[in-house]
Amino acid sequence: MLITTEVIGYIAATLTTLSFLPQALLTLKTRNTESLSLSMYSLFTTGVLLWLIYGVSISDKAIIFANSITFLLALSILSFKIYNTLRDRQ
Amino acid sequence: MLITTEVIGYIAATLTTLSFLPQALLTLKTRNTESLSLSMYSLFTTGVLLWLIYGVSISDKAIIFANSITFLLALSILSFKIYNTLRDRQ
Repeated sequence: MLITTEVIGYIAATLTTLSFLPQALLTLKTRNTESLSLSMYSLFTTGVLLWLIYGVSISDKAIIFANSITFLLALSILSFKIYNTLRDRQ
Repeated sequence: MLITTEVIGYIAATLTTLSFLPQALLTLKTRNTESLSLSMYSLFTTGVLLWLIYGVSISDKAIIFANSITFLLALSILSFKIYNTLRDRQ
């Protein structure tokens, strides 16, 4: 594998992992989750948790590290969405 | 690697890939992108594009397939967000 290919992989992983930070911050700031899909965050958070379990199973530190961060960010966004959804139903 | 670990990996990949489908459908239906983070979708779409380039570089069909789908879904959500952001500025 060329170094450039490896670097592209690392940048890709960093971007897709860190991208959830501005969304989590926006959601925390505005508490608005109207246009966020509950299905998306349910599926995504579950998927990232499974990636984390997969990473632990094969002892891959990069997978564990990236998915731990993404899991916490996705879970915080999902929590706000569930809270707002339940509140709006009342 | 145990078969169960591999299965967990496949389920994880399927969930994180397909999770963007309900978000894309919701955004297409409501055209509402108020609580979506422009930074998130800019970083995420760029990251997924780099994953796609990485997949092509190492000729990994699974990475190419999953990221092609995610790229199209994320790009459609990002396009709506950019359109709404530009419209609201006018």
